Amino acid sequence: MRVLGVDPGLTRCGLGVVDGLPGHRLQAVWFDVARSAPDDDVDQRLLAIERRLEAALEEHAPDTVAIERVFAQHNVRTVMGTAQVAGLALVAAARRRIPVAVHTPSEVKAAVTGNGRADKAQVQTMVARLLGLEERPKPADAADALALAICHLWRPQGAVSAPQRPPGSLTQAQRAWAAAEQAARRRA
Amino acid sequence: MRVLGVDPGLTRCGLGVVDGLPGHRLQAVWFDVARSAPDDDVDQRLLAIERRLEAALEEHAPDTVAIERVFAQHNVRTVMGTAQVAGLALVAAARRRIPVAVHTPSEVKAAVTGNGRADKAQVQTMVARLLGLEERPKPADAADALALAICHLWRPQGAVSAPQRPPGSLTQAQRAWAAAEQAARRRA
Repeated sequence: MRVLGVDPGLTRCGLGVVDGLPGHRLQAVWFDVARSAPDDDVDQRLLAIERRLEAALEEHAPDTVAIERVFAQHNVRTVMGTAQVAGLALVAAARRRIPVAVHTPSEVKAAVTGNGRADKAQVQTMVARLLGLEERPKPADAADALALAICHLWRPQGAVSAPQRPPGSLTQAQRAWAAAEQAARRRA
Repeated sequence: MRVLGVDPGLTRCGLGVVDGLPGHRLQAVWFDVARSAPDDDVDQRLLAIERRLEAALEEHAPDTVAIERVFAQHNVRTVMGTAQVAGLALVAAARRRIPVAVHTPSEVKAAVTGNGRADKAQVQTMVARLLGLEERPKPADAADALALAICHLWRPQGAVSAPQRPPGSLTQAQRAWAAAEQAARRRA
């Protein structure tokens, strides 16, 4: 199962491809940031990002595209461009009949760090650990895109959003996080 | 000069093509509303609208695409879909190297009625008069798309947004509006 994570943005759009199967280690396939020049007209900026999205879909042929949900209440100055890039990713996937999923930022943070309010550095650190990368993926947008893909691969099968779970049990993400923490302590 | 006006929306996206040249009467070429089913997933809805946008560009080959500006402050429930459809229109035009222009709702209303706060019925009435249509174009989204195209055709040449004008002088839109009002009074 291959997932392309998309952290939408008009100036920087994070892209990250992760392979994962139940019982197998997650594997980072590729990550990058698509950029557009803030001085360009918005139609040209959107076109530049769309071309990068199309190229990523073409080259990596993901089974699913996982996109960060954009909230209208967020930063009003950038939200329109962010929403438009998310729309381009939705349509680019739909054109290829690739299923899409949308995850909230807090779902993604909770999936990779166990904490829905984790900061960017913590997300980058955990993405590197979970994917076995020697360095934290940079910039943060690329790490966020990889985290989105991980979040999607680890979602409870068949669940649409936050599922009910027996109290006290650990999610797959929480177990992996605990294991990574233990491993880091052993190395220290 | 042929302009495709796009009144973006995810449930209803108004489309209208108008031909116009300095010194010639405006001519309505075509108008319609692209719809998507509110029960469908958003990626499929965006794809449905994109296909209609593409078909309109293909069939009518406009020289410019005029799109209504979407403001983040507006209706939070629908603004994301509206912004995404506007983004699709921007990219569909950019892919074909067709120039795009963005006009605010009040610019459009002022262009066709002389009043930036005109209601929908007034816009529909004036669009019908200015284009010589026997009936008011319906639904309102299609009329808004035609009004966008008219607004763009009548913009002061070379102006990017609201230009300076000698106080007391009439804009081309205001002159046409006055003439249409006179004609209507003569018919009454």
